[in-house]
Amino acid sequence: MSNVPYKRLNKDDAVVLLVDHQTGLISLVQDFTPNEFKNNVLALGDIAKFFKLPTILTTSFDSGPNGPIVPELKAQFPDAPFIARPGQINAWDNEDFVKAIKATGRKQLIIAGVVTDVCVAFPTLSAIAEGFEVFVVTDASGTFNTTVQQAAWARMSAAGAQLLNWFSVACELQGDWRNDMEGLANLLSERLPNYRNLINSYTKFTAQ
Amino acid sequence: MSNVPYKRLNKDDAVVLLVDHQTGLISLVQDFTPNEFKNNVLALGDIAKFFKLPTILTTSFDSGPNGPIVPELKAQFPDAPFIARPGQINAWDNEDFVKAIKATGRKQLIIAGVVTDVCVAFPTLSAIAEGFEVFVVTDASGTFNTTVQQAAWARMSAAGAQLLNWFSVACELQGDWRNDMEGLANLLSERLPNYRNLINSYTKFTAQ
Amino acid sequence: MSNVPYKRLNKDDAVVLLVDHQTGLISLVQDFTPNEFKNNVLALGDIAKFFKLPTILTTSFDSGPNGPIVPELKAQFPDAPFIARPGQINAWDNEDFVKAIKATGRKQLIIAGVVTDVCVAFPTLSAIAEGFEVFVVTDASGTFNTTVQQAAWARMSAAGAQLLNWFSVACELQGDWRNDMEGLANLLSERLPNYRNLINSYTKFTAQ
Amino acid sequence: MSNVPYKRLNKDDAVVLLVDHQTGLISLVQDFTPNEFKNNVLALGDIAKFFKLPTILTTSFDSGPNGPIVPELKAQFPDAPFIARPGQINAWDNEDFVKAIKATGRKQLIIAGVVTDVCVAFPTLSAIAEGFEVFVVTDASGTFNTTVQQAAWARMSAAGAQLLNWFSVACELQGDWRNDMEGLANLLSERLPNYRNLINSYTKFTAQ
Amino acid sequence: MSNVPYKRLNKDDAVVLLVDHQTGLISLVQDFTPNEFKNNVLALGDIAKFFKLPTILTTSFDSGPNGPIVPELKAQFPDAPFIARPGQINAWDNEDFVKAIKATGRKQLIIAGVVTDVCVAFPTLSAIAEGFEVFVVTDASGTFNTTVQQAAWARMSAAGAQLLNWFSVACELQGDWRNDMEGLANLLSERLPNYRNLINSYTKFTAQ
Amino acid sequence: MSNVPYKRLNKDDAVVLLVDHQTGLISLVQDFTPNEFKNNVLALGDIAKFFKLPTILTTSFDSGPNGPIVPELKAQFPDAPFIARPGQINAWDNEDFVKAIKATGRKQLIIAGVVTDVCVAFPTLSAIAEGFEVFVVTDASGTFNTTVQQAAWARMSAAGAQLLNWFSVACELQGDWRNDMEGLANLLSERLPNYRNLINSYTKFTAQ
Amino acid sequence: MSNVPYKRLNKDDAVVLLVDHQTGLISLVQDFTPNEFKNNVLALGDIAKFFKLPTILTTSFDSGPNGPIVPELKAQFPDAPFIARPGQINAWDNEDFVKAIKATGRKQLIIAGVVTDVCVAFPTLSAIAEGFEVFVVTDASGTFNTTVQQAAWARMSAAGAQLLNWFSVACELQGDWRNDMEGLANLLSERLPNYRNLINSYTKFTAQ
Amino acid sequence: MSNVPYKRLNKDDAVVLLVDHQTGLISLVQDFTPNEFKNNVLALGDIAKFFKLPTILTTSFDSGPNGPIVPELKAQFPDAPFIARPGQINAWDNEDFVKAIKATGRKQLIIAGVVTDVCVAFPTLSAIAEGFEVFVVTDASGTFNTTVQQAAWARMSAAGAQLLNWFSVACELQGDWRNDMEGLANLLSERLPNYRNLINSYTKFTAQ
Repeated sequence: MSNVPYKRLNKDDAVVLLVDHQTGLISLVQDFTPNEFKNNVLALGDIAKFFKLPTILTTSFDSGPNGPIVPELKAQFPDAPFIARPGQINAWDNEDFVKAIKATGRKQLIIAGVVTDVCVAFPTLSAIAEGFEVFVVTDASGTFNTTVQQAAWARMSAAGAQLLNWFSVACELQGDWRNDMEGLANLLSERLPNYRNLINSYTKFTAQ
Repeated sequence: MSNVPYKRLNKDDAVVLLVDHQTGLISLVQDFTPNEFKNNVLALGDIAKFFKLPTILTTSFDSGPNGPIVPELKAQFPDAPFIARPGQINAWDNEDFVKAIKATGRKQLIIAGVVTDVCVAFPTLSAIAEGFEVFVVTDASGTFNTTVQQAAWARMSAAGAQLLNWFSVACELQGDWRNDMEGLANLLSERLPNYRNLINSYTKFTAQ
Repeated sequence: MSNVPYKRLNKDDAVVLLVDHQTGLISLVQDFTPNEFKNNVLALGDIAKFFKLPTILTTSFDSGPNGPIVPELKAQFPDAPFIARPGQINAWDNEDFVKAIKATGRKQLIIAGVVTDVCVAFPTLSAIAEGFEVFVVTDASGTFNTTVQQAAWARMSAAGAQLLNWFSVACELQGDWRNDMEGLANLLSERLPNYRNLINSYTKFTAQ
Repeated sequence: MSNVPYKRLNKDDAVVLLVDHQTGLISLVQDFTPNEFKNNVLALGDIAKFFKLPTILTTSFDSGPNGPIVPELKAQFPDAPFIARPGQINAWDNEDFVKAIKATGRKQLIIAGVVTDVCVAFPTLSAIAEGFEVFVVTDASGTFNTTVQQAAWARMSAAGAQLLNWFSVACELQGDWRNDMEGLANLLSERLPNYRNLINSYTKFTAQ
Repeated sequence: MSNVPYKRLNKDDAVVLLVDHQTGLISLVQDFTPNEFKNNVLALGDIAKFFKLPTILTTSFDSGPNGPIVPELKAQFPDAPFIARPGQINAWDNEDFVKAIKATGRKQLIIAGVVTDVCVAFPTLSAIAEGFEVFVVTDASGTFNTTVQQAAWARMSAAGAQLLNWFSVACELQGDWRNDMEGLANLLSERLPNYRNLINSYTKFTAQ
Repeated sequence: MSNVPYKRLNKDDAVVLLVDHQTGLISLVQDFTPNEFKNNVLALGDIAKFFKLPTILTTSFDSGPNGPIVPELKAQFPDAPFIARPGQINAWDNEDFVKAIKATGRKQLIIAGVVTDVCVAFPTLSAIAEGFEVFVVTDASGTFNTTVQQAAWARMSAAGAQLLNWFSVACELQGDWRNDMEGLANLLSERLPNYRNLINSYTKFTAQ
Repeated sequence: MSNVPYKRLNKDDAVVLLVDHQTGLISLVQDFTPNEFKNNVLALGDIAKFFKLPTILTTSFDSGPNGPIVPELKAQFPDAPFIARPGQINAWDNEDFVKAIKATGRKQLIIAGVVTDVCVAFPTLSAIAEGFEVFVVTDASGTFNTTVQQAAWARMSAAGAQLLNWFSVACELQGDWRNDMEGLANLLSERLPNYRNLINSYTKFTAQ
Repeated sequence: MSNVPYKRLNKDDAVVLLVDHQTGLISLVQDFTPNEFKNNVLALGDIAKFFKLPTILTTSFDSGPNGPIVPELKAQFPDAPFIARPGQINAWDNEDFVKAIKATGRKQLIIAGVVTDVCVAFPTLSAIAEGFEVFVVTDASGTFNTTVQQAAWARMSAAGAQLLNWFSVACELQGDWRNDMEGLANLLSERLPNYRNLINSYTKFTAQ
């Protein structure tokens, strides 16, 4: 068994990469329902903002059929670096994108995108090859069907990427609830309806 | 084949019944994911408001473990009749609930609730027996698992209830997009992410 | 739509029939997991006892490979009529079984058994033909796989049987929580872990 | 509820129709695995032989790509009427087929075939229209996928066909185990591995 | 059981209605994979042409986000009545659409569309109410998910619509392979890859 | 292939960690049905007691919406170390928790909890990094859905954790049935209904 | 990437281990249907015989509820070493079992059994630790459900076992069809109904 | 984590191997629907042609029941090396096949075939052992069912093969859309109906 220290997500060393969440491309996603996927992507956006992580947006041909970035994401990060790639499929092939990442000085990449097998997998594999630690947010990344999803996960995992979900990202970054209990609770309440229900039941009962 | 005229939903003859969407009870629902279910229930709430349908809320023991009504619904309908049933499991057994319905003078009941097999099925069966037309909003009604769901659907359908989804309710009430195109588009855009994507792509492309 | 009054389950007119829940036959059931099925069957037993419904047990060749009745059921109903059928596959073909039912003077049959397509479907069809109202407890009845289950449900539903689940049976018999709130809550708490969790959270919070 | 007497399968009034179980057509079946389907079809053949039911075989273009009838079925019924239809898709449109049925003087048709939505559904609908009672053996009938299967079932059920599985057919015809216990046990043992296991355990234990 | 003669599809009495198969709306469909759905819709188009059935196309707001009709369908039926509805959600509410149907003098409607629960279900219910026989092509009609699909099927079936798949439509219209063996084989070969494989194996083997 | 000796679970070197099985949090679990999950968790509790393994309980904010530990677990281990964490999400960040583990002097950690991706995965990764052998009891650990489950399993497996189920834990610790045949049989009988059925059939048959 | 030569199954170096395929234990298997599982296990038996591989049978408590070995396997290998283990759960803990393996002088173990997570996984892990190459026949090994199956597969794969299916075992041992074309074809024809259909179509067509 | 540079697919170093896509063998495939599978295989053919990759076809006994290669593939590559293997199951055991690969001087093998667990897995394992980089196109490779598929994927992944889908292959080879935007768009449009819909909507909207 490994003796390598557990490399946790660290809010001072992590950067969020949101790749090709565009109005057209998202219509290709069928490994999540549209509502689940929207909720997961926006939850990851919430996390980036909550932990003040540098966040980089990129799109592929947003003037063509792929469509513009979903407006909610653009609205969440009005001032973030936004790289509209002129043609590179692998975002890592775009110098501006890599420069923006390196400018943060951070080594942990939290990545999500559409479609998982291309727009997420390619930069993930490239970044690992350059020594970055890559954390793939599986449920904020979508693709054509679960068979494709599973092959893409297997390829990235075999290359050393860590697979996790947005909830794990939030919890690993937070570390201790006491760092900002209300803040995290608000975030979770908005994105996990059953957690919101627990809070509402609790509030009602303890007020009785 | 039937020669009975198609009884459409009519916004002047319909009333919406939201039964037992409570913070505790919803945690029992597993035939929809929490996000899907929340989205569906709020969509039905949006419809009731958009078409100005009389809406009646009811809960079962909301001071006990079943929990309070989900706050979003209460907020959508602050002035609607709200019947906190003291014990009747079948809402139709509660006189105030039936009175509230009859007070509207309407004969078409659009019903949804938690759990489908009890809180929806029982008043549905009772209302049909009294001559009402009942439209069960299947995707805004949740229960323990799909096996239970399917048996409950079969029982209600055999008794004459019409099974449909919230999107059908919206479209059948609207009839013609020209009645309020922007209003309906806004409603759908909020609850159908892929429809929102279509609109955003369209807006972008036609502006180019 | 029907104008027939809703025929509810009535605890003064209902009898419970538990058909062939035997240790060997249950190993054939694969449309429910073993734990789910055990829980559902025992829940129906709990209901019969709670509402003091006359209950009739029957088995098919319990000295052969089909095995004895599961001991928990026998223990729940030590004094109930127990008809070990010498050969009739359709329990309705056994005079003693039908006599035991008719001796109760009741017309509503709540039936569950193994396997659904034979041991439940056959007596259901026979009883309907003789004018009984039959309520099939779908989740306390098991069979080889869901394809067989679905065909059996369709056959019984087309013949006029009402399909429902054990939770619906409990709630329809109870009618009003106030009839015995603690009793029903205990029953549900034992068989619905998430409901038990709600109660335990509630108790904790309101005691704080 | 219906007061119509339950029309049971009666071994003196039933005839088995095996429609288009051909080597080519079966390769189109994907709503059952190949092994499940083979087992189910041969089980139905076993039943026909065990109860000495008149059995009629028919094929569609067996000299073309549809392929010959599966040899096991032909071997089970070497002397049965075998109608190789020259072109009629609905076997009921073939005079010889209908004549063969009517020659038996029987009114209960037990039918199975490939594909369910055509080769089973069409003669089922035709036969019901002529006053026959039709019992569709759902698990010895296969088609392209479960969506097609479900629509075909719904169409036939709505027309008055009874949907059931081969095990129900066997049990309903047998009526009482004592009619030939060993015979039926042998039949089931061959086609239900878990039932065979029960018998083998039983034999071992009682011999100890 | 019914004594009503089986109302078969009749190529001299049938008309095909293709409702709202538009490039935007189809991106909402998730109860079929995109490839399956495309194949099914085009197969229905092939059928309409092969049997020379009058065919009527209609769209909803094709200048807006719903998008234009898929070009393949328009190409298949360049001269068919094409009704671009200005706002009516239920195509039956559009006078031109109903007039086009009535102009054919035919009483059997073969309908498919997007989404099933609205664009198919509404005109289906309306047409049945006016005495038409309606055949819903379930696999050339798509919607948001299978839960919505199942409720829509149940609603239409309960109203008297016949549910079937495109392959059944083709076979019921053809009646006898000898009417045009090569033509039908070509049609099926294009849309059923495994049937094409059978033909290719057959051709190879018989040529050896 | 590995030449590393198989590191088996050893009842003298193993400790059980039950993390955050709380009444509120469990309502978030949807990758197992509530009954399956309850049964699996209590089975693991049974194992810990049966093999007299040191067991450590921990909770996260049990005075808030997460709710108290499920009473059955607390009842099983009234004297076990119970660490109510004041805020640390990763239990390994809580000194008392790690101290309690180290106080046992054991190196094999058998861990289960809610939710898998956080409350199980984080301490698993931390413990491996410190040289412990970690055995994740996959079926006594629950989370939001199977997609999240699969990503969490992949992450832990890649880090060197062994994934297994409670039944494997029991069998690997037992080693030889003869160590206490009746004891293990009782344990399994309570948690595996089909195994109980085997025993009951056996007892009946051998007594005949 | 690995430069290790591909270690193929070699019929001169392989031995087959059939672990605990007993009549009682098999009733616990629910990750395969009973028919699929029976077919897969017997196919593996066929392979062992066809390639004349030394084969070792073992059972656990076959005089108790676990039941005797399924008679078909015993009949296939009447003279094979048969080790009825008196209590060891891990067959590798039984000296006679390991001796029987070592007596063959072979280093490739082809293993299958019931249940996968215990009776297969334990000896697999033990054998790898002693330097054997282990090939787990995944579809001739069964367990409680697919969640347990997946965890067991992951554990064995991580330890260096090769996962494969019985068809791969047959093909890898055969190497070249010309080694005995008819023999292998017969074997496959018996266990793969669709392959049998291909052969029957071929025979018919080429004889025309 | 790995420091190995990401080995991307390179159109100057890749060769495509299409193994045993034969009319008979494809009828055995049930882990993809026939339409999905046909579309995926032809998409891979399109890719090979579009990027002018050397492509090698091989078949197993194409004069027997396995059937001829599907004509579409043969038509796509009329001049490609075509090795009709006389008996070797593992194509790598056929000297001509390996020679044809080595003649290209390329080291990256893109492989797909039927069935995955044999015709793809065996040459994949052999080629890796000889130092080739192997990219398995998972969705253009089919087999008996998903259980077999998953075991085959695990075996190949553990040996160092990269699992991916045809869309990833296309995108990784293309690198930059600007290399031939129209060409790639045409390719994708033909094989991804929802992408075609995006393009058609875009064309319509921007032309308005």
